[in-house]
Amino acid sequence: MHSTQPDNNHLDELSPLTDIEQITQALADGKNKRVRKLLARMHPAKVAALLEMLDPEQRQALWQQVDAALETRLRPHMNLDLLGQFAVDSGDAPGSEASDAGQGGRTAPDAVNQLADIRIALEGGKLKRVGKILLRIHPAKVAGLLESLPPTERSTVWSMVETERTGKVLTYLHDEIRISLARQLEVEDLVATAQRLELDDLVDLIQTLPSELSSALLQSSTGRRREQLESMLSYPEDSAGGLMDADPIEVRANVKVGTVLRYLRLLETLPSHTDILMVVDRKGHYQGTLRLSTLVTAELGLRVSDVMQTDIAGISVHTEATEVARLFQDLDLLSAPVVDDDNRLIGRITVDDVVDLIRQDSDRAMMQMAGLDDEADIFAPVLVSSRRRAVWLGINLLTAFLAAWVIGRFQATLEHVVALAVLMPIVASMGGVAGSQTLTLVIRGLALGQVQKGNIRILLNREVGISILNGLLWAVVVALLAVAWFGDWGIGGVLGAAILINLLCAALAGLAIPLILDRLGIDPALAGSVILTTVTDVIGFFSFLGLATVLLL
Amino acid sequence: MHSTQPDNNHLDELSPLTDIEQITQALADGKNKRVRKLLARMHPAKVAALLEMLDPEQRQALWQQVDAALETRLRPHMNLDLLGQFAVDSGDAPGSEASDAGQGGRTAPDAVNQLADIRIALEGGKLKRVGKILLRIHPAKVAGLLESLPPTERSTVWSMVETERTGKVLTYLHDEIRISLARQLEVEDLVATAQRLELDDLVDLIQTLPSELSSALLQSSTGRRREQLESMLSYPEDSAGGLMDADPIEVRANVKVGTVLRYLRLLETLPSHTDILMVVDRKGHYQGTLRLSTLVTAELGLRVSDVMQTDIAGISVHTEATEVARLFQDLDLLSAPVVDDDNRLIGRITVDDVVDLIRQDSDRAMMQMAGLDDEADIFAPVLVSSRRRAVWLGINLLTAFLAAWVIGRFQATLEHVVALAVLMPIVASMGGVAGSQTLTLVIRGLALGQVQKGNIRILLNREVGISILNGLLWAVVVALLAVAWFGDWGIGGVLGAAILINLLCAALAGLAIPLILDRLGIDPALAGSVILTTVTDVIGFFSFLGLATVLLL
Repeated sequence: MHSTQPDNNHLDELSPLTDIEQITQALADGKNKRVRKLLARMHPAKVAALLEMLDPEQRQALWQQVDAALETRLRPHMNLDLLGQFAVDSGDAPGSEASDAGQGGRTAPDAVNQLADIRIALEGGKLKRVGKILLRIHPAKVAGLLESLPPTERSTVWSMVETERTGKVLTYLHDEIRISLARQLEVEDLVATAQRLELDDLVDLIQTLPSELSSALLQSSTGRRREQLESMLSYPEDSAGGLMDADPIEVRANVKVGTVLRYLRLLETLPSHTDILMVVDRKGHYQGTLRLSTLVTAELGLRVSDVMQTDIAGISVHTEATEVARLFQDLDLLSAPVVDDDNRLIGRITVDDVVDLIRQDSDRAMMQMAGLDDEADIFAPVLVSSRRRAVWLGINLLTAFLAAWVIGRFQATLEHVVALAVLMPIVASMGGVAGSQTLTLVIRGLALGQVQKGNIRILLNREVGISILNGLLWAVVVALLAVAWFGDWGIGGVLGAAILINLLCAALAGLAIPLILDRLGIDPALAGSVILTTVTDVIGFFSFLGLATVLLL
Repeated sequence: MHSTQPDNNHLDELSPLTDIEQITQALADGKNKRVRKLLARMHPAKVAALLEMLDPEQRQALWQQVDAALETRLRPHMNLDLLGQFAVDSGDAPGSEASDAGQGGRTAPDAVNQLADIRIALEGGKLKRVGKILLRIHPAKVAGLLESLPPTERSTVWSMVETERTGKVLTYLHDEIRISLARQLEVEDLVATAQRLELDDLVDLIQTLPSELSSALLQSSTGRRREQLESMLSYPEDSAGGLMDADPIEVRANVKVGTVLRYLRLLETLPSHTDILMVVDRKGHYQGTLRLSTLVTAELGLRVSDVMQTDIAGISVHTEATEVARLFQDLDLLSAPVVDDDNRLIGRITVDDVVDLIRQDSDRAMMQMAGLDDEADIFAPVLVSSRRRAVWLGINLLTAFLAAWVIGRFQATLEHVVALAVLMPIVASMGGVAGSQTLTLVIRGLALGQVQKGNIRILLNREVGISILNGLLWAVVVALLAVAWFGDWGIGGVLGAAILINLLCAALAGLAIPLILDRLGIDPALAGSVILTTVTDVIGFFSFLGLATVLLL
């Protein structure tokens, strides 16, 4: 990442290089943002001259960085020959303009077109087109596009995102990509764009970015904003404090509705996602909420105390994020007050952050089950990804060898009855499937709060019952198939018995493992399936080959 | 479910039975709601008399159904002896009152206590306590409690939920439990409580309940509500139309802010989750949105057209639900307009429904991977659950036998080198794990839109690269371990080669399977993992034993 250091020299300091040298160098480094910045400071005539000086390739590259405004100021100074060369690309494929329309419901098809459009534009080196396309897209979708691109193309596209929007885009990216792209920005630009962010987004950035950047962001903010920022950063990321925004609108219970309306009109704008005002007493203790929808329908003469809601209690700043999410879901909240231990109002949580949270959680669970990191870049360098996945494969190898070792104990038996080797995977796999069903059920039950101390015993009985019924059913089926195949009742019997045993143990393991992990504070989704497979494999092979050894030799 | 038919006889029709006979029968059937209803119609003196007549057990049961109001009217008519008997249970365990406080932030601990409290109260037959506890809990949490209880206790608790709240509770339940509990209600009660529901909740009910109930619900609603209901029902459940509510507040672009405020004050109340008003032209075409937060801060003299937002396009009524969810997430929407093909405003979608949708989707994906139904009752009768899971086990059995069949082709080889039987599970399991990593990555990539035509080729190269690197790494490791174990370089070599081959094929399969399923319109999360395991098992065993046969014999 050293390559990014040079960027940090501020433009206003006396630079040893001439503009032209700086530009050519920036072009060579592909630092388009820097090029545009330099161009902006130069007189159009000088730029025109520069364009003529450069060799055709550099010239094209530079021209791609000339924005519409500069272009118009530039044209008078350019000779017809040059103008002729550039005439072609300044035009825009008509088809693409269409997607200009629906930046809402119709974005679905676009998303695809946009990726295609951009990759085509990139191949043609038409960075202007890329910039134009990006301009039309919501930051969230820009983030999506960036994540869908391989690293090299990604940083080119990133360099074409307007500096003002980069901050917002960063907030929508997954950690790994966010960090790498933030590093590609000049610190001063990062700081500038961060100033436009809402506090909770900024906190999110600061928490994920490497210290050299995050400290820059923190220092850049001053006064009240700085204080709020630091107080918000003092809470763990996955707590109500980490989710909250520090900008609730407070009103007193004893004032009139009309007065509140006049007060709001003085504020001119409310923070985004403001659906309720917070009612607090003189000491700032939270008392209740006043819905805007109530405010605009209530009689002006009524007092806030007459129309406020008191049914939603303040969320303690220490509440776990997952619990906050469940609250929002259960109580259908749009935003909710966050209070400290003395029930003093210190912030609010808005549903948009909760939605992201829920998405991430479900994402994480799914990825963890396969030993993957949900914040990882799916286009990360092959070597990096390989190393990450190798760990998981290594863990699995241990369990595989454990199973193999069990089989190894019974080599003598296998030599006598080789059919056992043919059938033994069936026992293990049936156990694995049955176990994973119970495991998944319990993991989800824990997440939804359906599985609690109060009813584990009932659940246990059910799972055991189910596994016995299915065990008997499939034991018979498999046994008969085995007999039909090898014409040996002994093998069939042993196979059936082993399956029954393994399914029973699988149910017990599938229930016990997540409960134990949960008790230990380990995420069941992460380690659950590996441990389960180990159990079902070992028990499967042992019971099958063990029984065979006892009964068939 | 025939048992529920008798409920349908309406009370207002002349009943052949006397009140007392009806009550004793209802008590016997455990139809507490019906009992309470009958009691409400009787004169307190008569009830008192009834109480004295009944045998102690029935008396207790009946007393549990006497609510506070009736109790006070009853006392004067009761003899001291009886009063004495009941004095005990009318009192309430003090501890339980505590959980009365925080119906918001502090619900987390409660949830647990509540389940415990209720089960204790049930064992003591203290239905009154149960009713009291339920009264304090938000419908969503009541639903959670019901889902955490085994069927018998569940229906007892259900019978103690106030009729008014049953409708709301139903909307929070998963389909299977929802249906069974709705069946336990008297149709007239179901209809009554349904009238209190918001349209989108009602639609949701009608779509999931069995026809006899849903038709009753539909017919019960009349006039405008009926029309809206039918139009909403005409859209598929998983489309914007199925998610939308038909109650947007419309305003014209040319009216003044002050006028809008006066208009709203005339409405007195706004639909829940109203954060924006919809701006439409004379023909009802959607033009833009006016935020309440803008409305309360804007100058009264300004026109709506001056302060309205036009950046959010109307969501087409045909948009897929998942796409709607992504829109809400990307654009941080609280609610959004739904338009027909002529861009005419026909409804709005609110974020609370989107939150539920996201939760359900993530739930479903996780459950489907284990072949489970996310709408199923985790306390469903053992026999029912067994049958459901048996299907999945059966499917898996096919793949297991396929793998076994492959092994069977090589019995001769296994007889010569029994060590192969010991090691072959390692090849299969390593392949399975590696494949599932790619599979998960792609399934999620498809969901997030990260994986598209535009970049599949790149993804392919990466996955192949990763699998080769990891393949080589673990091939060597495993080979050496095998050599160390069996002191046979041949076996080690074959094992390593097989692992390399299987990991490569696993990566290809993990990438191809979800893409193909997605193309076929099958949910990759559902069938993906089974197919993958089949592939990795078959290829694993075949490559290992095949190579062994060629090279070692």
